[in-house]
Amino acid sequence: MARGFRQKIHQKNTENSGFGDNASGRFINKDGLPNVNRKGVNIFNRFSWYHTMLDLSTFQFLSYLVIAYILVNLFFALIYYLIGVEHLTGIDKSDPINEFIDVFFFSSQTFTTVGYGRIAPVGFMASLVATFEAFLGLLTFAIATGLFYGRFSRPRAYLKFSDIAVIAPFKESSALMFRLAPFKNNALTDADVVVSTAIEVIEDSVPKTNFYQLKTQLSKINTLALNWTIVHKIDEESPFYGFSGDDFKNTNIEIIVHVRAFDEVFSNTVVQRSSYVSKEIIYGAKFIPMYYPDKENLSTILDLDKINDYQNADLPVFAEEQL
Amino acid sequence: MARGFRQKIHQKNTENSGFGDNASGRFINKDGLPNVNRKGVNIFNRFSWYHTMLDLSTFQFLSYLVIAYILVNLFFALIYYLIGVEHLTGIDKSDPINEFIDVFFFSSQTFTTVGYGRIAPVGFMASLVATFEAFLGLLTFAIATGLFYGRFSRPRAYLKFSDIAVIAPFKESSALMFRLAPFKNNALTDADVVVSTAIEVIEDSVPKTNFYQLKTQLSKINTLALNWTIVHKIDEESPFYGFSGDDFKNTNIEIIVHVRAFDEVFSNTVVQRSSYVSKEIIYGAKFIPMYYPDKENLSTILDLDKINDYQNADLPVFAEEQL
Amino acid sequence: MARGFRQKIHQKNTENSGFGDNASGRFINKDGLPNVNRKGVNIFNRFSWYHTMLDLSTFQFLSYLVIAYILVNLFFALIYYLIGVEHLTGIDKSDPINEFIDVFFFSSQTFTTVGYGRIAPVGFMASLVATFEAFLGLLTFAIATGLFYGRFSRPRAYLKFSDIAVIAPFKESSALMFRLAPFKNNALTDADVVVSTAIEVIEDSVPKTNFYQLKTQLSKINTLALNWTIVHKIDEESPFYGFSGDDFKNTNIEIIVHVRAFDEVFSNTVVQRSSYVSKEIIYGAKFIPMYYPDKENLSTILDLDKINDYQNADLPVFAEEQL
Amino acid sequence: MARGFRQKIHQKNTENSGFGDNASGRFINKDGLPNVNRKGVNIFNRFSWYHTMLDLSTFQFLSYLVIAYILVNLFFALIYYLIGVEHLTGIDKSDPINEFIDVFFFSSQTFTTVGYGRIAPVGFMASLVATFEAFLGLLTFAIATGLFYGRFSRPRAYLKFSDIAVIAPFKESSALMFRLAPFKNNALTDADVVVSTAIEVIEDSVPKTNFYQLKTQLSKINTLALNWTIVHKIDEESPFYGFSGDDFKNTNIEIIVHVRAFDEVFSNTVVQRSSYVSKEIIYGAKFIPMYYPDKENLSTILDLDKINDYQNADLPVFAEEQL
Repeated sequence: MARGFRQKIHQKNTENSGFGDNASGRFINKDGLPNVNRKGVNIFNRFSWYHTMLDLSTFQFLSYLVIAYILVNLFFALIYYLIGVEHLTGIDKSDPINEFIDVFFFSSQTFTTVGYGRIAPVGFMASLVATFEAFLGLLTFAIATGLFYGRFSRPRAYLKFSDIAVIAPFKESSALMFRLAPFKNNALTDADVVVSTAIEVIEDSVPKTNFYQLKTQLSKINTLALNWTIVHKIDEESPFYGFSGDDFKNTNIEIIVHVRAFDEVFSNTVVQRSSYVSKEIIYGAKFIPMYYPDKENLSTILDLDKINDYQNADLPVFAEEQL
Repeated sequence: MARGFRQKIHQKNTENSGFGDNASGRFINKDGLPNVNRKGVNIFNRFSWYHTMLDLSTFQFLSYLVIAYILVNLFFALIYYLIGVEHLTGIDKSDPINEFIDVFFFSSQTFTTVGYGRIAPVGFMASLVATFEAFLGLLTFAIATGLFYGRFSRPRAYLKFSDIAVIAPFKESSALMFRLAPFKNNALTDADVVVSTAIEVIEDSVPKTNFYQLKTQLSKINTLALNWTIVHKIDEESPFYGFSGDDFKNTNIEIIVHVRAFDEVFSNTVVQRSSYVSKEIIYGAKFIPMYYPDKENLSTILDLDKINDYQNADLPVFAEEQL
Repeated sequence: MARGFRQKIHQKNTENSGFGDNASGRFINKDGLPNVNRKGVNIFNRFSWYHTMLDLSTFQFLSYLVIAYILVNLFFALIYYLIGVEHLTGIDKSDPINEFIDVFFFSSQTFTTVGYGRIAPVGFMASLVATFEAFLGLLTFAIATGLFYGRFSRPRAYLKFSDIAVIAPFKESSALMFRLAPFKNNALTDADVVVSTAIEVIEDSVPKTNFYQLKTQLSKINTLALNWTIVHKIDEESPFYGFSGDDFKNTNIEIIVHVRAFDEVFSNTVVQRSSYVSKEIIYGAKFIPMYYPDKENLSTILDLDKINDYQNADLPVFAEEQL
Repeated sequence: MARGFRQKIHQKNTENSGFGDNASGRFINKDGLPNVNRKGVNIFNRFSWYHTMLDLSTFQFLSYLVIAYILVNLFFALIYYLIGVEHLTGIDKSDPINEFIDVFFFSSQTFTTVGYGRIAPVGFMASLVATFEAFLGLLTFAIATGLFYGRFSRPRAYLKFSDIAVIAPFKESSALMFRLAPFKNNALTDADVVVSTAIEVIEDSVPKTNFYQLKTQLSKINTLALNWTIVHKIDEESPFYGFSGDDFKNTNIEIIVHVRAFDEVFSNTVVQRSSYVSKEIIYGAKFIPMYYPDKENLSTILDLDKINDYQNADLPVFAEEQL
């Protein structure tokens, strides 16, 4: 069943979305990344390993480090073993397994440059390999240092978006609303938001996706410390003008949100994107306030768990909805 | 006692402060951070540990590092002790305490990768733990390297604000003035300032906070090397037009300041915020200059200790003050 | 044979290219760097070694590190050898070559701070040199850490440009088109493009290069996730108005492209430049689409190998071409 | 002898220089830093040690590191010596000097974590101190790593300004000109320049410094690869309109230059400032071109040694100069 909207939307669609008619599926994923897969080009050139390492979870990142550490030591242990344990002092030569265990530990003591010296290279080949293993170890930790720093110094907005958007009553009309709030101890200022929408329309019986800019009541705020409710009033200039609850349900709609703010700790602009598709839009609802004064009236409390809390609300009836 | 202002202010209030009617207490603390507490969300998700580490004082940061170092070594010492001191060479086995002391030092020599080798692992388990302790040690110092760099490379404006603002005579009228000066050897250019105010007004007997933008005489300067006195003239367009000294004292007022400049060392934009509440505003005073030519008239001296120096000054009397 | 265009171009040329009449050859190389050589100034001052190290390929960079490591150890081995092997314990004194080999490995064990201790300094001079070698080693790896981080954290756009530009039919007229696409897993938003052209014209029988800004149909897009085809319509305002295929072939033309976008991982603006000269412009061709929906219609696939694919296309005939 | 200009300049002076009437001497030093000294505030708070470390020359920076390394080792050597050499194994106890030398080297082997183990701690106190020295050593090198990176990754414009400015003939009138060129292998784009001037004028017999913005013919260029000659035409709108050669010589004038560009390697905006005072302005001269095509006409050569080359040039005579 085609889910394109049937009527003509009066507003002119914009062409600078970066997506064209051949694109399909959700445009922007919930996490803000575009829903695009790449092929072609050598696979090694298609990925920035630095971007990849930065996108790993902490657990994944540490696991990879530990696994790499074990593999490297196994590799060098094998080399020392092949060179011969007689080129190393202090090896337990009771049986081959103990020999291999000892060269493995010698390798790790070299790679980390701990170098106790209980086991130490005496022959030329073992010394040469150890020379390069220690060098490799230091370079590896140099890279790890850079990756750790890159990971935790990466400027991020740390914004939590409401999971849902609502169509709420607003100034004798209705408005599309969703909200966001900073959830970490960062300090954001000079925030602005750009909201656009992709609507699938039927033109000459062919479904086609049009993009529209959505005007918001307040597109810039000075301090982003409390929650920020983004309000797009559905008036004559809105592409949603005249949409009924069924229209919102039965049309392929995607609301694309792009928030930009200045983080005072990073002294850098941070951005975060998200999107809402038709099934994430609740028609006839309004958000419940999520901040309130503290008991002594001395500061304000922001309750992040309430970000999705809403209650039903009757919308004014439009003549246009009956079209 | 409610401290809201009684009359109507003619200027239209702005809505982009990011604070709403439910907020209470000072909005921006003296140090520039918003006066908001967060709750909800898992506590681990509510803090960016990197932001937290960057906000610690140097003393706190170093203390935490030393404490972590001791704890890690106690932890590993315990493991080695449980594995058994017979898996380590060179241990002083005269009594259990000496044994523990020696495994503690073995742990520290492993964690720092100093690895003298006087004490060295011989058994499988001790070697295995040491292998991972040395690895952990290097990763820890990789993280410490990143944190040190993050801490001292963090772009900051290093601006000192005057503790007080004054209402001073200015061009046959009066003006709200405060001043700021760079106090470190950084080089700031292209500075601009945005000043706004929150005033509690009584509307229909209900106290309500309105936000107003305050126009300043000079909102941009090229070089921020001397002190900068920010001047908001109190004329018909000012929300303070007609305020008497008592009005300033008895109304809940907050002046919110946001300074932005370009630091040529960091090649980055730096920002700093501060605020003044009613009790920090002195009515009928003017600042004493804080810079002067040096003896040889070859350069200029900025005396930072004078930043709060002011003298009393009579203000012109307004008819409006008698309302 | 002079390749300057003969007629007068109606559009006013721009003067802010940064290149003047004395410049010659291609202005911007294919990789985006200006085609300028510098002389004068001390050679050490003419290069930023940091920029140089960042521009090396990974292979070159690692090779230089390894070579430097070997040279440093040879240098210190020579010093220890000259001081005398009797100042080191554990040296194999069977013959001078073995002695040198052992001091070389001692040097590497000191430089990497692995310090097994099988060979260790006992005399004053050897200890002193080792003291500084270990210090130098740590500083070297500190620098290497910085270089690694600088190399892989360097913000780059990772854009692939089509090798060729085409003159394609466009809205009953023709247009200069080329395209670009992000080829790595980075996330670019807020992209904009500036296109200019350098055309060699004959003024009073003297060849002279004029620069013109080229208007594009869409100079900004929100999300740069798919390919972006830049379209410059050749209308009355275009400097190419009335150019025939031969004119494109026989005139010295250079199209200079400058793309800027915001990378959400780096939270930084990234730029990339490229250029097209006459022989890289195909007259009468159009690009074949390079992205399409995936099988389930759930996302979009971008095939980077198709970026240069085009087919021939007839252009409308202009009266002006016959001039 | 007062060197203020006597006549009224018609242009309105600007007030956003950041310098006021009490400032004296040159405002901006030749290296671009403001000519201001600070006093007051605790000396430790008046300096950002990070900014200080970044401003040191490479030689100074390395010297400080070496000196700090020696002092730290002397300090720890003294502690080990006071604890007693019997708490260390392998010490040469032939005489106190040899003892001290050996504990000094033990200290350095601990601080750098090389830890050969020929000398190793055995007693509790010596082990404890060594535990902290190794920890301190690693933290020190963590800091050094950050400083090295901070130093060489610091975004800088690497622009060379001509030492002198000239008053040259320009379009039937005259113009103030100076030039600048990038002297390293960095790639600058989107450059812009802001030029202002401070002129000492006599108002009511009192010398007073006024600031004026100077309009330039071309204030933005796309690519800053060749030299850029900044041209301020001296027409009716210029504060220098009607200045004779003697006026330039006898008036306290300072030209303040502020260049900003985008460095594609750092992906960052870089700025550089400089200034010209009266004695650095040559009246009646013009610059000699400093770039030319290479032999094969395939690229352009920029000769940085010619940046100050000029030849005398007659200026048109103004009626106003005779005032």
